[in-house]
Amino acid sequence: MDQTVQQQLTDCILACNHCFDACLKEEHVGHMANCIRLDRDCADICSLLLQAIARNSSNVAVLAKACQEICEACAAECSKHDHDHCQACAKACTECAEACRQLI
Amino acid sequence: MDQTVQQQLTDCILACNHCFDACLKEEHVGHMANCIRLDRDCADICSLLLQAIARNSSNVAVLAKACQEICEACAAECSKHDHDHCQACAKACTECAEACRQLI
Amino acid sequence: MDQTVQQQLTDCILACNHCFDACLKEEHVGHMANCIRLDRDCADICSLLLQAIARNSSNVAVLAKACQEICEACAAECSKHDHDHCQACAKACTECAEACRQLI
Amino acid sequence: MDQTVQQQLTDCILACNHCFDACLKEEHVGHMANCIRLDRDCADICSLLLQAIARNSSNVAVLAKACQEICEACAAECSKHDHDHCQACAKACTECAEACRQLI
Repeated sequence: MDQTVQQQLTDCILACNHCFDACLKEEHVGHMANCIRLDRDCADICSLLLQAIARNSSNVAVLAKACQEICEACAAECSKHDHDHCQACAKACTECAEACRQLI
Repeated sequence: MDQTVQQQLTDCILACNHCFDACLKEEHVGHMANCIRLDRDCADICSLLLQAIARNSSNVAVLAKACQEICEACAAECSKHDHDHCQACAKACTECAEACRQLI
Repeated sequence: MDQTVQQQLTDCILACNHCFDACLKEEHVGHMANCIRLDRDCADICSLLLQAIARNSSNVAVLAKACQEICEACAAECSKHDHDHCQACAKACTECAEACRQLI
Repeated sequence: MDQTVQQQLTDCILACNHCFDACLKEEHVGHMANCIRLDRDCADICSLLLQAIARNSSNVAVLAKACQEICEACAAECSKHDHDHCQACAKACTECAEACRQLI
């Protein structure tokens, strides 16, 4: 199971950073402000959790709870936008949130 | 209030890293393994929360909840050891956990 | 000396995150895209270096070199903008870059 | 190319955290202190670089230079130890250092 979780965390880290970059290149960047913020928050907590799982940290469940909530918030925001990068990010975040739920 | 929280998070980051370093120099490093692990977990979530507060992230409460729990776990472990660095770290973590509680 | 470096790194982390937040609230966010990107890069490398110094890492000089360059890039971008948050961030980054230079 | 670099960075992050965990479970933890320190440094700079690449940061080359040097230091230390986790980590770090060199 861990291998799948690690893959989903990695996918989510990459999707959030890709979306962050792409949002900053959009014509109406102002509309993407919340997306840019959440992409950053989400990528950072996913990175922390990915590392914590790989070293058998005793805090995996605590971090997974936070990660799940932040992934869900990022998915909710991204899903409002039609851009491909937002839709792809919403999908990665939703799957990652589901994977986190299994670690709690 | 934020300024105090930010100072306590910074103090906790520094105390945890100092304790990590000092534990690895102790004669009986094996006894300090859990302390070394928790010092790392605690410094990393404090760093994330410090940054999140400073940019008015919408995820401050979620991260503060995780940070509080990890600070408490680190304080509980460090307080078992008589080394000055462990006692100082336990104190910093306890105060930081209390500060986090006010952000939730 | 380390205490001053640590204070300048902390100031830079906070200034970069504050600037990131404030840039995303500006009327013309599109003009601030590079600033938003560099604020994030800069805060993250400063956070890594702050922790590395506090645990006597053998990689302080390597990280300080990277941190100096990223602080200088962020200062150069921020100094182009008249916003108070950009000017404050440019100042914090310039002082932090100077502090990093002494660690190399 | 980027996809390969990202895979090698991810492999290195996981190998370093796995080695960190396993070193702390070894009978003679004191002998592994430098390994534990370098595993942490290495995983953290790899995480930063992985994210920077994914968002087309202008600081990829600067971070890749630091990452290469830290990967090489971690590989040099890990290769001194016969434990499987150290040998696996040394291999992942060596390959990651080579990948970083191509980004500079």
